[in-house]
Amino acid sequence: MNKVITLKERPSGKPEEKNFEFKEEEKPALQDGEILLASKYISVDPYLRGRMRDEDSYITPFKLNEPLSSMVVAEIIESKNDEFQEGDHVSGMLQWKQLQKHTGEGLNKITNKKVPLSAYLGVLGLTGLTAYLALENIGKLKEGETLLVSGAAGAVGSIVGQIGKIKGCRVVGIAGTDEKIDHIKNDFGFDAGINYKTTENMAKAIAENCPDGVDVYFDNVGGEILDAAMQNINDFARIINCGAISIYNKEEVPKGMRLEGIMVKKRALMQGFIVRDHADEFQEAIKQLGSWLADDKLKFDETKREGFENVPKAFIEIFEGKNTGKMLVEV
Amino acid sequence: MNKVITLKERPSGKPEEKNFEFKEEEKPALQDGEILLASKYISVDPYLRGRMRDEDSYITPFKLNEPLSSMVVAEIIESKNDEFQEGDHVSGMLQWKQLQKHTGEGLNKITNKKVPLSAYLGVLGLTGLTAYLALENIGKLKEGETLLVSGAAGAVGSIVGQIGKIKGCRVVGIAGTDEKIDHIKNDFGFDAGINYKTTENMAKAIAENCPDGVDVYFDNVGGEILDAAMQNINDFARIINCGAISIYNKEEVPKGMRLEGIMVKKRALMQGFIVRDHADEFQEAIKQLGSWLADDKLKFDETKREGFENVPKAFIEIFEGKNTGKMLVEV
Repeated sequence: MNKVITLKERPSGKPEEKNFEFKEEEKPALQDGEILLASKYISVDPYLRGRMRDEDSYITPFKLNEPLSSMVVAEIIESKNDEFQEGDHVSGMLQWKQLQKHTGEGLNKITNKKVPLSAYLGVLGLTGLTAYLALENIGKLKEGETLLVSGAAGAVGSIVGQIGKIKGCRVVGIAGTDEKIDHIKNDFGFDAGINYKTTENMAKAIAENCPDGVDVYFDNVGGEILDAAMQNINDFARIINCGAISIYNKEEVPKGMRLEGIMVKKRALMQGFIVRDHADEFQEAIKQLGSWLADDKLKFDETKREGFENVPKAFIEIFEGKNTGKMLVEV
Repeated sequence: MNKVITLKERPSGKPEEKNFEFKEEEKPALQDGEILLASKYISVDPYLRGRMRDEDSYITPFKLNEPLSSMVVAEIIESKNDEFQEGDHVSGMLQWKQLQKHTGEGLNKITNKKVPLSAYLGVLGLTGLTAYLALENIGKLKEGETLLVSGAAGAVGSIVGQIGKIKGCRVVGIAGTDEKIDHIKNDFGFDAGINYKTTENMAKAIAENCPDGVDVYFDNVGGEILDAAMQNINDFARIINCGAISIYNKEEVPKGMRLEGIMVKKRALMQGFIVRDHADEFQEAIKQLGSWLADDKLKFDETKREGFENVPKAFIEIFEGKNTGKMLVEV
């Protein structure tokens, strides 16, 4: 029998294990043109929380009692499609199933054997693409500028910071433990880090760590950290709204500092970014990221959980800040 | 004796007449190369409130006990400068004085006699330039889109709406009296108007008046009207932060709806705009606005007060919503 993870009920507030259900189904039988995929690595991402709501969103909501999906690296274990060989690996938007059949359409063939398979869910997957393309399209970093990043030890944040260093910027990261702060400074080359959980006055801490002000703020969290960053932006600053994890779990939109006065005064630019809008730029971006990776200019880490049965738990742990870098499950 | 208006004390909250002082000084004596200007029309603008604060801003704060300044149309009544003739008119950033001397540097010579002098403080002055250049640089209107404008009967808003119609957009305006709503519809060609003072649920009213959603929101006010607009924006909407009159008079930054979740979801762009940053685009813009004006495609109105002694009062009246269109004083 084949195991499948479905959405049993829509989370209210923070996701819980009871929102998910494991079901069994027959092992899929192939028709001509199809391939059978065995999931190897399953990506769990904050944005999936949004798809669990039953409301109009930029991406269709998940249906109740049907399998969830995310980016997955899979091995082809049987092929009735000439374009795919048994033993090859692919990545793509796939269902949370141990086994699934597929026409192969829209899947990315993994050909570069030098890069570990799981990197295709991270630095060469949506997280790396998000970091790179948001900076290219909105951040437009200039040498010597100051880049502030929240969620700095996370999958996107850690790549953002390293790109900032490659571009010759001062890079300051915000994260939630002293270990993460040490990590981003020692391993990812950030110039400074701020632990928001032990810092009383974030606006002041940002001012101290960004003596020339903030030119680009890459915001993965929203909320009060955004307010604190906004109090330190320079004229013509760019703010990338890449995530609002502090808001996703709230049932009502929280209140915060009104930002429009600062926006006018500083002629700041704030823009929401979703990587899917930029599919036509992926190839170019993967080329650039792959070359930095090959030159050892880009390090990444991942928090790996083991076992298909731990996919929901790994997803929940993101909202508890238990991951460092890309969170994924090795099936 | 020559009359002068100085800043006696910095307003706390809404400006009051006691914040200003009338002083007298000797009539200025000219040196070679100088001209003597008699103020004809003095512009009063919401942004001046910001300059009355003693804090770092995009523009130097006014000094206590010194003359205030704004855009002024003046007549040259004496000239010791070959480039300027007695009887000519100029516009420029000038002091709130009945008479003042000047080197002429940076002043705009008014040569087009077909346009009324006061238009140089409005549609061909900073307000018209603000409307046009913010739309060009941030709004990037496309035919068939929906443009929402707050402060729609104001000097900037009324021009914004008319440019929207020229560009083939549905244009919806927000203002504070039924008279203003009638005015923007009947005289400026807006498709619809919403009186925010008599509307209980602004978000719903905007939804009803913008059935295809809001593509560009030109925000002259900030605050709760911005929140309501944000609940109706389309994917890839552009929000122009051009003013935050609802915030200027507050001593503490008010709280409001957190917008970062919507920013991400809609991949919206929000950008602060101050026309002074775009001085190199003025000439081109004045040409375009002047041509629309000549073709009668652009109407404007102004609220004119009489007498130099009424300049502070006229300024205060802006914050009471007593003006329709450009507020200015005929000296």
